[in-house]
Amino acid sequence: MVTDSENTLKIAQQGFEHFKHGLATGEWQEFLDMLTEDFTFWFPIGKFSGWNHGKERAKEFFQYVSAAFNQGIKLTALDRITSSQTTVVFEFRDEALLFGQPYKNRVAVFFDVRGDKICAYREYFGSDGKS
Amino acid sequence: MVTDSENTLKIAQQGFEHFKHGLATGEWQEFLDMLTEDFTFWFPIGKFSGWNHGKERAKEFFQYVSAAFNQGIKLTALDRITSSQTTVVFEFRDEALLFGQPYKNRVAVFFDVRGDKICAYREYFGSDGKS
Repeated sequence: MVTDSENTLKIAQQGFEHFKHGLATGEWQEFLDMLTEDFTFWFPIGKFSGWNHGKERAKEFFQYVSAAFNQGIKLTALDRITSSQTTVVFEFRDEALLFGQPYKNRVAVFFDVRGDKICAYREYFGSDGKS
Repeated sequence: MVTDSENTLKIAQQGFEHFKHGLATGEWQEFLDMLTEDFTFWFPIGKFSGWNHGKERAKEFFQYVSAAFNQGIKLTALDRITSSQTTVVFEFRDEALLFGQPYKNRVAVFFDVRGDKICAYREYFGSDGKS
């Protein structure tokens, strides 16, 4: 029998693979396909700071990210995965050029899972974007 | 039988109570007593940004936090706890005066547990300190 926790981890890991692909290439469709219609997300700063609602808004957001980092964002290390029955947290580091300037961050992203979809996403920053 | 996960959650929750008390009052001793000698912690910005090692360094850090927020930091909401066998993540919101100016943040803190102690702490920011 597959437990809730196992399913949650499996779905979140699939989602994270698509998320990484989106960051690297700007192709977000596979990730967007995994989101529930009532998907919500939290982002710390800028135009999308605070709570955002709906899949359309998510599409706008991830396209905006890929426009800002138009040479792609490279995930350089996945430091830790913390997983419960409903939520999986990925702590990772990434590097990119942000409007042409070198950018490095340490990030914690939270995926909440419902069934075989991701219903919420929250992002937190572990650095000032320089280290 | 108490499982690893149950123990981890219990110890982290005890630690979090002492952590909240420290934030509110500047009294950190009970929290510090729960840290392993080889405790490490990650903080995103400022004088303590990056990895820090040892209990003495932790003491310095938490005293520094309480000096900056010398009227205390009030935890206004505990939004979610995500707990695995080794790690417990607390997502919360807080409010304070930072050098006299209103400050609000959304934070994710990670406690790694070993036995009945906390062996690592990582902090991530979910806002720019204004909301």
